[in-house]
Amino acid sequence: MLYTNEQMLDLFEGYLSQAETPAEPELLYSPIVYSMSGGGKRLRPLLLLLTAQAFGGDASAVMPAAVAVEVFHNFTLLHDDIMDNADMRRGKPSVYKRWGANVAILSGDAMMICAYKTLSKISPDKLPRVVDMFSSMALQVCEGQQYDMDFEKKRKVSVVDYIQMIESKTSALLSGAATIGAVLADAGEEDVRRIHRFATELGLAFQLQDDLLDSYGDVMLGKKIGGDILEGKQTYLMVQAMSLASEPQREILRTTHSDASLTDGEKIERVRAVYDSLGVARMTEQQISLRFERALGVLDTLSIGADRREPLAEFARNLMGRKR
Amino acid sequence: MLYTNEQMLDLFEGYLSQAETPAEPELLYSPIVYSMSGGGKRLRPLLLLLTAQAFGGDASAVMPAAVAVEVFHNFTLLHDDIMDNADMRRGKPSVYKRWGANVAILSGDAMMICAYKTLSKISPDKLPRVVDMFSSMALQVCEGQQYDMDFEKKRKVSVVDYIQMIESKTSALLSGAATIGAVLADAGEEDVRRIHRFATELGLAFQLQDDLLDSYGDVMLGKKIGGDILEGKQTYLMVQAMSLASEPQREILRTTHSDASLTDGEKIERVRAVYDSLGVARMTEQQISLRFERALGVLDTLSIGADRREPLAEFARNLMGRKR
Repeated sequence: MLYTNEQMLDLFEGYLSQAETPAEPELLYSPIVYSMSGGGKRLRPLLLLLTAQAFGGDASAVMPAAVAVEVFHNFTLLHDDIMDNADMRRGKPSVYKRWGANVAILSGDAMMICAYKTLSKISPDKLPRVVDMFSSMALQVCEGQQYDMDFEKKRKVSVVDYIQMIESKTSALLSGAATIGAVLADAGEEDVRRIHRFATELGLAFQLQDDLLDSYGDVMLGKKIGGDILEGKQTYLMVQAMSLASEPQREILRTTHSDASLTDGEKIERVRAVYDSLGVARMTEQQISLRFERALGVLDTLSIGADRREPLAEFARNLMGRKR
Repeated sequence: MLYTNEQMLDLFEGYLSQAETPAEPELLYSPIVYSMSGGGKRLRPLLLLLTAQAFGGDASAVMPAAVAVEVFHNFTLLHDDIMDNADMRRGKPSVYKRWGANVAILSGDAMMICAYKTLSKISPDKLPRVVDMFSSMALQVCEGQQYDMDFEKKRKVSVVDYIQMIESKTSALLSGAATIGAVLADAGEEDVRRIHRFATELGLAFQLQDDLLDSYGDVMLGKKIGGDILEGKQTYLMVQAMSLASEPQREILRTTHSDASLTDGEKIERVRAVYDSLGVARMTEQQISLRFERALGVLDTLSIGADRREPLAEFARNLMGRKR
């Protein structure tokens, strides 16, 4: 019997809730507890567990790796919030905002160490490879974050460079989680490569959708839109628009976010008017569908039965908020 | 034939110089190269290698662990310099000063990941235990740094609390390095415990000497003294003095560093006058000697021959700048 995705998530939360964090020094450890109980969607550990299960692995045996991936993900948020000067995270003050930069730096460091410490509890014969995989994944996430910061200072970012950046910043953790799950379940090397491709494409679709929703909003009521536009951030829509725009349009795209004579609403409207005239929302939707379909297509090539592929397809659909 | 301490250091530098760091993204990786080539004394990897050799281990087999410990140490300096707002490190601008906080945070994160990635190359059968040991050591260092920052805001720090803090902040990396070296060389559990005690006591002696030299200077010409006094930092001399001082003396110890009416020279003179009247320099010297002798005493109890203990004793003497 396979666990359903909901059951697997419950198993994970149950396992995670048993983890003990030292009480002292309080300023080192309480931000970790705050961060880990902040209501994340647990996407990465769930993907790891579902992948391991798909290849016949035992959920409880791979649980430490799932925890390690989630702790690492939350660590990146702690440090990203300092670098991005972000006050809020999941509807609550960020650790950076609540405790300050020094606490966020050091607690984050401790979280990364905790991630590796937890990882060391997996099956010993797999540990050398998995520590190496985990570290490569983690480095790639750092590279993505650095490129993202580099892009803020660049006038022009190519679409190819942008895709490469989000492949590192967003996809790497998903593909790392999925491949670690596959390796822990003794999947064949071909399948490991395929599952990597699946999670990479899915991660790209997910990030592009995030970019699109930021500018064009969600079906959910009350979702604040336009944050990326107001911050002058590089997004898929922005880099596409810049590559297609006329010189006057480029000027609008470049300068609007820092134009003090405009209200926030006017800024968003102005940039979206350029996006609309260039059709970049439509292009982004096409990219999202392309990446999503590719991800599902890769699943069909795995050397496992359809019943074992289905939970991964369901994970992908849920992630994207799609019925099919 | 055993390598001499100098030969071992050369071996390490040779191994380290072969490490390849990616070129891009430049702002992620060039601070790592800058930090690693900044001329550290390589104390921790040397201790790891000498300990492994003492127990019959092969230097080349444990080299990845030695590199991991050194990379981790340099990572802590990168992040500490942000938290301590330190402009200089080893006579050069700190990474924080040269590239800014964001680069120092992210490059530091990448360094810690690189440390674990390197560590994963050691003998696979030892990896689970060593990753766990390494992580416990690393967490202890973070705890020490947090206590150190906590102490800055405390009016009164007990001598016991201070010793515990430096045991975490300074000794833990030395004792971690030494015990990892011992475990990799298949030392017996008794010997692992003894070598832990040796490195812990040595680390305490080293830190107390650092505290003493900051207030009373070094035989080396040109060593700037009084930095801890001017920053109002907790040191062994300060916590001892606070525990022994009269109320008027306490007031001097508490307020002098922030007294804007005094020159730096006057501040140092005033605090040292209290230290002198209480004899805390002498007490610190006694503590240093006590810890150092304890460390050497533990070496004599190791279940290995005198020729194998001698390089460790030499390491200890060199660290403390002592002939015997």
